[in-house]
Amino acid sequence: MRRLRLGMVGGGQGAFIGGVHRLAARLDGQWELVAGALSSDAERARASAEDLGIAPDRAYSDFEEMARAEAAREDGIDAVAIVTPNHMHAAPAIAFLRAGIHVLCDKPMAATQEQAEAMAEAQRARGKHLIITYNYTAYPLIRQAREMIAAGELGEIRQVMVEYAQDWLAEDVSNKQADWRTDPARSGAGGCIGDIGTHAFNLAGVVTGLTATELAADLDAFVPGRKVDDNAHILLRFKGGAKGMLWASQVAVGHENGLRLRVHGTKGGIDWAQENPNEMWFTRLGGPRQRLTRGGPGATEAGLASLRIPPGHPEGYLEGFATLYAEAAALIRGESVGAALPGVGDGLAGMRFIAACIASSAAGGAWQSLTPD
Amino acid sequence: MRRLRLGMVGGGQGAFIGGVHRLAARLDGQWELVAGALSSDAERARASAEDLGIAPDRAYSDFEEMARAEAAREDGIDAVAIVTPNHMHAAPAIAFLRAGIHVLCDKPMAATQEQAEAMAEAQRARGKHLIITYNYTAYPLIRQAREMIAAGELGEIRQVMVEYAQDWLAEDVSNKQADWRTDPARSGAGGCIGDIGTHAFNLAGVVTGLTATELAADLDAFVPGRKVDDNAHILLRFKGGAKGMLWASQVAVGHENGLRLRVHGTKGGIDWAQENPNEMWFTRLGGPRQRLTRGGPGATEAGLASLRIPPGHPEGYLEGFATLYAEAAALIRGESVGAALPGVGDGLAGMRFIAACIASSAAGGAWQSLTPD
Amino acid sequence: MRRLRLGMVGGGQGAFIGGVHRLAARLDGQWELVAGALSSDAERARASAEDLGIAPDRAYSDFEEMARAEAAREDGIDAVAIVTPNHMHAAPAIAFLRAGIHVLCDKPMAATQEQAEAMAEAQRARGKHLIITYNYTAYPLIRQAREMIAAGELGEIRQVMVEYAQDWLAEDVSNKQADWRTDPARSGAGGCIGDIGTHAFNLAGVVTGLTATELAADLDAFVPGRKVDDNAHILLRFKGGAKGMLWASQVAVGHENGLRLRVHGTKGGIDWAQENPNEMWFTRLGGPRQRLTRGGPGATEAGLASLRIPPGHPEGYLEGFATLYAEAAALIRGESVGAALPGVGDGLAGMRFIAACIASSAAGGAWQSLTPD
Amino acid sequence: MRRLRLGMVGGGQGAFIGGVHRLAARLDGQWELVAGALSSDAERARASAEDLGIAPDRAYSDFEEMARAEAAREDGIDAVAIVTPNHMHAAPAIAFLRAGIHVLCDKPMAATQEQAEAMAEAQRARGKHLIITYNYTAYPLIRQAREMIAAGELGEIRQVMVEYAQDWLAEDVSNKQADWRTDPARSGAGGCIGDIGTHAFNLAGVVTGLTATELAADLDAFVPGRKVDDNAHILLRFKGGAKGMLWASQVAVGHENGLRLRVHGTKGGIDWAQENPNEMWFTRLGGPRQRLTRGGPGATEAGLASLRIPPGHPEGYLEGFATLYAEAAALIRGESVGAALPGVGDGLAGMRFIAACIASSAAGGAWQSLTPD
Repeated sequence: MRRLRLGMVGGGQGAFIGGVHRLAARLDGQWELVAGALSSDAERARASAEDLGIAPDRAYSDFEEMARAEAAREDGIDAVAIVTPNHMHAAPAIAFLRAGIHVLCDKPMAATQEQAEAMAEAQRARGKHLIITYNYTAYPLIRQAREMIAAGELGEIRQVMVEYAQDWLAEDVSNKQADWRTDPARSGAGGCIGDIGTHAFNLAGVVTGLTATELAADLDAFVPGRKVDDNAHILLRFKGGAKGMLWASQVAVGHENGLRLRVHGTKGGIDWAQENPNEMWFTRLGGPRQRLTRGGPGATEAGLASLRIPPGHPEGYLEGFATLYAEAAALIRGESVGAALPGVGDGLAGMRFIAACIASSAAGGAWQSLTPD
Repeated sequence: MRRLRLGMVGGGQGAFIGGVHRLAARLDGQWELVAGALSSDAERARASAEDLGIAPDRAYSDFEEMARAEAAREDGIDAVAIVTPNHMHAAPAIAFLRAGIHVLCDKPMAATQEQAEAMAEAQRARGKHLIITYNYTAYPLIRQAREMIAAGELGEIRQVMVEYAQDWLAEDVSNKQADWRTDPARSGAGGCIGDIGTHAFNLAGVVTGLTATELAADLDAFVPGRKVDDNAHILLRFKGGAKGMLWASQVAVGHENGLRLRVHGTKGGIDWAQENPNEMWFTRLGGPRQRLTRGGPGATEAGLASLRIPPGHPEGYLEGFATLYAEAAALIRGESVGAALPGVGDGLAGMRFIAACIASSAAGGAWQSLTPD
Repeated sequence: MRRLRLGMVGGGQGAFIGGVHRLAARLDGQWELVAGALSSDAERARASAEDLGIAPDRAYSDFEEMARAEAAREDGIDAVAIVTPNHMHAAPAIAFLRAGIHVLCDKPMAATQEQAEAMAEAQRARGKHLIITYNYTAYPLIRQAREMIAAGELGEIRQVMVEYAQDWLAEDVSNKQADWRTDPARSGAGGCIGDIGTHAFNLAGVVTGLTATELAADLDAFVPGRKVDDNAHILLRFKGGAKGMLWASQVAVGHENGLRLRVHGTKGGIDWAQENPNEMWFTRLGGPRQRLTRGGPGATEAGLASLRIPPGHPEGYLEGFATLYAEAAALIRGESVGAALPGVGDGLAGMRFIAACIASSAAGGAWQSLTPD
Repeated sequence: MRRLRLGMVGGGQGAFIGGVHRLAARLDGQWELVAGALSSDAERARASAEDLGIAPDRAYSDFEEMARAEAAREDGIDAVAIVTPNHMHAAPAIAFLRAGIHVLCDKPMAATQEQAEAMAEAQRARGKHLIITYNYTAYPLIRQAREMIAAGELGEIRQVMVEYAQDWLAEDVSNKQADWRTDPARSGAGGCIGDIGTHAFNLAGVVTGLTATELAADLDAFVPGRKVDDNAHILLRFKGGAKGMLWASQVAVGHENGLRLRVHGTKGGIDWAQENPNEMWFTRLGGPRQRLTRGGPGATEAGLASLRIPPGHPEGYLEGFATLYAEAAALIRGESVGAALPGVGDGLAGMRFIAACIASSAAGGAWQSLTPD
């Protein structure tokens, strides 16, 4: 079976998430990176492509040109990864979708809801895949948690507690990663709610299968001069009566990448934290806490589906991310993909979440609907 | 130095918290239990007193009589512990305070704000001590955290995250402890917000020194038929700009007595959990997390003040509770007590918290002021 | 029921373990400290007694006199606690046993095997109780582990891994606690193997019910000039074929009071650590690790027998120690005591362990028998 | 820069470690698998090669033929990975080394010391690289620990505590992985001491820089009928006076892949466990335990050298393994490789360790020298 051909927009020298996408695409041997518009600066695009072994004739500096040229080649790319800052997601995504090329787009889907809707429209028009890389949902134990909850092992869900705390923006820092994330022109109106809050919101929804209907949000920009939120305290209400809390922060000293999800239902509860993703706590009502391990005793079908190595041999962030790429490959090849890959629906829900947070906070923390009109 | 003489109202056979108060009073050898109105049922009061070695002539079934009689005796009690359900705090507290006898009263202060204010009034009138046993504030590392924050080690506080999760009421259970706590006539209008939410709220305030000014609360009674809240999701705003989240639940499967406090400031963060109270995580901005231990390296004066045994030899719940009794003894003896014992101010603040939660939730989760009129 | 009357030998001002015994004796309200030979220095003995509220006529400076006088009093002590350095255990223990007074003696039993055997002889001669306060065996989860193993829940035991690591003697320190423990004239020939190694050895035997038959020991005095071992690496063989490792160290930087026991059998395994004694890991072959909590789901009869407060409310070192005093009281009152209190057999086994370690190490780490002749 | 060309001996359908080597080789994009003798069964070799996209003319069933053919091709392999059972390491390694092809060989180096020495001889004769994939030494925090110890941050080392506990052989299981590992004809005389004990032994030596000079070992085959050891209790002595304990077990119920290393010196101590390899505990004498994270505060140059993603984004087993392949590529390209890759010296030391364990255990646990003659 031939490797699928991957293109990339963004991800030139100095970028972070582009390198992650490349590692993830490479891990399972399903993809080959063959083309890129890695930077809008022509020289940088060329140099970055050379670093990555991309042939000079497929090193573009303009994504429109790339979409046209790749669509025209017999050996054109099967899919493109979009790893630019948020405000630069929509235009290339739409260009490639219109050119008939599948898209894997980093999260959040876009900088504005309008952009996201235009992307969704382009996706529908040509029927190509548009995958949003909410990578945390691909950890094996998260897949397992989703399956356990769907199977009723937690009973009816009552509370969903999710948090994503970091501290790398606790001060007024300036670097490539920080700059665009704290610039509303590039990140969109949401700061930490967009960058990490959407991950937390998505994770909660994917694992529980619940739809959030309302929220009340208290957003702060604690660092003086910061133009976007760096801390968000949010109450959530879900269809069916479950309640939730979501905390996202990039200024919580002592947290590196503290994404944690707890879900409690009438019959059981789970607790999982991303920094040690190979274990998950599971309690049945009236029983002791059990430490489930990735692929260990009690693993479900979904929990076993993407294992590369046995229990006790830790898998990490790249392996979870790679699972998205492996599943995208399977999807493109027309194979069935067991667990739902995050797609347009997840992307749009994230954009509504950001908008509702901002509206709620602007209204002094008043409750806002999350239901699409 | 003679032991102080302690009386007790409530705490007869089958009670829980009365036994805890007795163990706590006994641990440091400062108190002797000599009188009690342990039950309003005369026979039960007598039998309970006998079990506890209380002389028959000091085994009362009526607390009014007890207050009169003890005040009249030359060897009358120095203080009384009130360990009845919430609705029975005010009357005995007032009776003893008026009789010139110090009071240690379990939390929350009362079943209603009116009762609490009457207690406060009685306290002021005679100048006797009224201590509210918010025992979790007496853990050595909590005392240390308070001192560290006061000394500026965390910088300016930004977020206060506190939660108190249990699961013993996850189903519709009936027993002595559950019954009164879920009966608004005895517990007051608050269910879990009164029983454990006030602990969390008090702890957050005591440790940070911050005053909460507003809250938005989403209360639920998840168990069908339950008349009081069993889960509370609360956003907090503090004077000076810090923000907080408080979660209290008695229906979160997998939690035994999960009181946890995290505080993050401009310069550092702490993380402490009651179930292993002998360690606290402390991170200075830019440094690694440090595991501070009770009395271990980095311990402050307040963190060392109440140690009974060296680091590594775990102290627990009873030791913390006992510290309140030891400090009450010192106070009554006219000695100086370094860290503030929880008193009337803490008690009233807790009552305002309960009232605001209920008002907010009744108004659909709208923000409510916590500031006294 | 009257409180039992307790005397104490040792434990004057500045001592550590004497205070622990007093707290432990007081906690459950079964004992009253009424007499003491708290120091061999008469003035210090008097002052210490005054601090503790002991009547002047029962403040002795000579334990022989104390044994005689107390045995003669109508209200004489029921039992005596011996909390002196090791070399001063035997003489007072024998004096009180001969005077017909029960003895609770700190561990190890004595400084030499000869002393220990003389104590055992005195115990047998008068039939009074001689309890050795191997307190770690009284933690509820340890009692539970013992019961689980006895009930076959781990199957046939294969490995016993026990360690007790501290770091307070990592340098050449001098203080009251360090001085006698590092002086062979007072501690006996064993340093850390006597002070903490015996605890580990005892715990392993009590929990598993296995008898160690042979050992190979590598003892070191890592701190220059130290006259007794401060680190011990030991291999163990048990009757029936199980094997073990024991590590005791007082120079392992990063360890406060790190006593940990792991036992693995054909059907299951457990893991328990003293610093958080309220949880124990239990794995059934083929199942996930379970976190058993003190008194929580899965608690056995023995695990519930000594609980003072519910799961999630941590009990600690003093509570475990207090259980020994409560059980000693029950024993003296003629009540049945479910789990075996550590007694003469445990004490003598500990002395044989020390002797075998020293002999093995002296022989270059050769194997030594632990079987009594 | 072209990818290096990799061949593989072993690793056909159903194998475990072959897949790991392939993932590791792929992760960093430095290698391309182009040839293989994946099985000695011709049909299986062919089918396995097809699965992996190896061209039919480079799918060999005979490693001798493969070595000859690849050495003769202009586009022949740069290196070969040997991932067969232990008894099949030496012959192919020697064949490829003699053919002038670099070798990456799984551990332990061989089934017998004689085989290992012949491999070493072949390596010296042609000067090609022979890397032994002791992969656990490549975790970033292990590299950091090694650097910290070399820099004196722990002072003079006193104790080295290492263990590697699993439970997958707790019963008499039969499958491809278990069968050869418990068959002395294929695994060599060592069972768990060879399969995982050598990892632990290697890790201890690499991190501390110390040379073990003597050991006493107690080996058991606990599962009835097992022909090789499944549990090993070992005392170690190091040049310079440090002492150690090593426990290796494949029958310790509750352990998945429990490799843990603790090292204590005069000035500090570290503690690291493989199952959560992204954190390491570090204590300076007199200070609190610090939780160092992969790439987090306090990271050293070696700890940062192989990072692919930032702190808080967990890396795992495959990433560590991939570092060996990335470094091997650098070495072959003539670039400098900072931290020493495990090579012939490590491999031979492992074989001496196995032999000494077996000799010691056969002699009733007597001490054996580890020093090469």
